[in-house]
Amino acid sequence: MKNLTNNNHNINSLIEQRWSTRAFSNMPVEKAKLQSILEATRWAPSAFNEQPWRFILGQKGDNTYNSLLSTLSDWNIIWASNAPVLILNIAKKTFTHNGIENITSDYDLGQAVGFMILEVVNQGLFAHQMSGFDPAKAAELFNIPDDFRAISVTAVGYYGDEQNIPEDMAAMETKPRLRKDFNEIIFSDKFGGENHL
Amino acid sequence: MKNLTNNNHNINSLIEQRWSTRAFSNMPVEKAKLQSILEATRWAPSAFNEQPWRFILGQKGDNTYNSLLSTLSDWNIIWASNAPVLILNIAKKTFTHNGIENITSDYDLGQAVGFMILEVVNQGLFAHQMSGFDPAKAAELFNIPDDFRAISVTAVGYYGDEQNIPEDMAAMETKPRLRKDFNEIIFSDKFGGENHL
Repeated sequence: MKNLTNNNHNINSLIEQRWSTRAFSNMPVEKAKLQSILEATRWAPSAFNEQPWRFILGQKGDNTYNSLLSTLSDWNIIWASNAPVLILNIAKKTFTHNGIENITSDYDLGQAVGFMILEVVNQGLFAHQMSGFDPAKAAELFNIPDDFRAISVTAVGYYGDEQNIPEDMAAMETKPRLRKDFNEIIFSDKFGGENHL
Repeated sequence: MKNLTNNNHNINSLIEQRWSTRAFSNMPVEKAKLQSILEATRWAPSAFNEQPWRFILGQKGDNTYNSLLSTLSDWNIIWASNAPVLILNIAKKTFTHNGIENITSDYDLGQAVGFMILEVVNQGLFAHQMSGFDPAKAAELFNIPDDFRAISVTAVGYYGDEQNIPEDMAAMETKPRLRKDFNEIIFSDKFGGENHL
């Protein structure tokens, strides 16, 4: 478990408490909790209210879960195979009302998944997103149309035991979360300049 | 104001209460609140912890605010010019550790801004993101390097008065929020198939 009190300014507890574990329990997640974490995605904002997000959800023991697991990188399979739930996050690349490219589809999907992982915290669960998977294989396995793009996989579950993952991964569980300072990411005038916060 | 109780499953109040007003007050936002909403972005997850998000923040009365306002579409200027704070949201397109394209940079920026707008709710404020702006003009005005991409502008402030915006916009303030149902966005087997939630 991590020390989670290294923020410099007050923030809500959902964001403060969120971190990406690799030490999942294989205990199943209650259906009502899965409904809540998916419900959270519905209320994200999006350009023209397109809601360009789609999700394929597998639970340990079903074919979807096994297929999703088979798309992950070897490194991710080691720890993600403990998690009871895997969710493929997919963006629709065009607007439905006019067929034109939606240049904020990945961005909007990111917000929807961001909302999901904060509801995960609210439900006493943990989430860990992975970009280390094979999107072409996922597209083939799940018949994803050309107009959609699979961008990440989220593992969801309860916190487990650090002894169930290799020592090098377990060591990452207790490392402090490192982030850039305000002066690296916020500018009040030109890009790269100073900030007044 | 909107009726905000049309979710089908329990979700945390930050997500439940969030919506994108156009009726901003021009009352300034306290510095401590701006610090908190930017702090929230720091703790978003990202691929390889790249944190590919950058923000240019303008406040009503400063040059940055006026420059940001000048990049907005005519429709957005009408209502956004009441908001006391405008923030340009920018993604870094490559990984810093190896220079390779970061295909989740827009997605990661979206999560960081998603975290920001939920902290906005926590601070009693409102936020409204816009994709209707001129990214090339923004890049020129703020000297944004080629390796970065401005993707949206967020207006932030207190709730104001619906009578300060045109009637057609004011009418949108009270319309219920519409979202796709689970069966349109969640699949338990193949893409487009049924779901077991």
